Amino acid sequence: MRFAEDYPVGSSFELGSHIVTAEEITRFATQYDPQPYHLSEAEGQQSAFGGLIASGWNTAAIWMSLYVRAMLEDSSVEGSPGVDELRWLTPVRPGDELFGHVEVAGMVPSLTRRDVLTLRKKGWLTRGDGETVMSLVLHSRFTRRPSAN
Amino acid sequence: MRFAEDYPVGSSFELGSHIVTAEEITRFATQYDPQPYHLSEAEGQQSAFGGLIASGWNTAAIWMSLYVRAMLEDSSVEGSPGVDELRWLTPVRPGDELFGHVEVAGMVPSLTRRDVLTLRKKGWLTRGDGETVMSLVLHSRFTRRPSAN
Repeated sequence: MRFAEDYPVGSSFELGSHIVTAEEITRFATQYDPQPYHLSEAEGQQSAFGGLIASGWNTAAIWMSLYVRAMLEDSSVEGSPGVDELRWLTPVRPGDELFGHVEVAGMVPSLTRRDVLTLRKKGWLTRGDGETVMSLVLHSRFTRRPSAN
Repeated sequence: MRFAEDYPVGSSFELGSHIVTAEEITRFATQYDPQPYHLSEAEGQQSAFGGLIASGWNTAAIWMSLYVRAMLEDSSVEGSPGVDELRWLTPVRPGDELFGHVEVAGMVPSLTRRDVLTLRKKGWLTRGDGETVMSLVLHSRFTRRPSAN
């Protein structure tokens, strides 16, 4: 079991990668973000983006999927109060392989529960060519290792 | 066609509502956020949340879906540089009806394109009982009405 103390400030982790497909982009967008340039290559080509691009929310969710699978299994995480500075830096297109990264940037005690620490994590996605396509700051609550209470 | 000038600072809009189902929560989570309390009622009951709750990214995407359908059709929107202050204020559970809201909080000229304004919009979701479950600040680019150039 991994507790708050197992994610020390300054540590960083590679989260693996995910290849984005046109099918994923259009499926996500049809339900959650039906703007023309997320729905088809043809509509994307008529837009300022010159082709089909992923919804920024889809890109953020891809980072989350890599983070959860690499970092949260058998952990003491108890949800998140939120995210800051979510930035979509360059469009994500079909065929892009996105690599997830995370760095523990800070840790503060919960104001309401002595057994909980809130971790501040900087997360980002890079493409195969090294360009960063998205970044964010995720706050998340973890209980402390019981022996440390 | 709606241009940047059609979303004046201080104006606010009701975006309609969406009823969250257990099926949507688990389907989204299976792909993007497979933490136990997002995957089944049984696992949720064993967690600090006392039942199945939606991924925060699912909740944000629901707000986006209401916003896009109510506000962006036939608009000059050209994507978003990002989001700030995304806050998950209370868990979202199956059966919750979420009502979308948005208020135009600010507008600044693009630094790089004379024909584009960046709008800052405060968005939030309330439940049927009036409680706010999520809020965010979305930045988005719109081209100006051509006659205004």
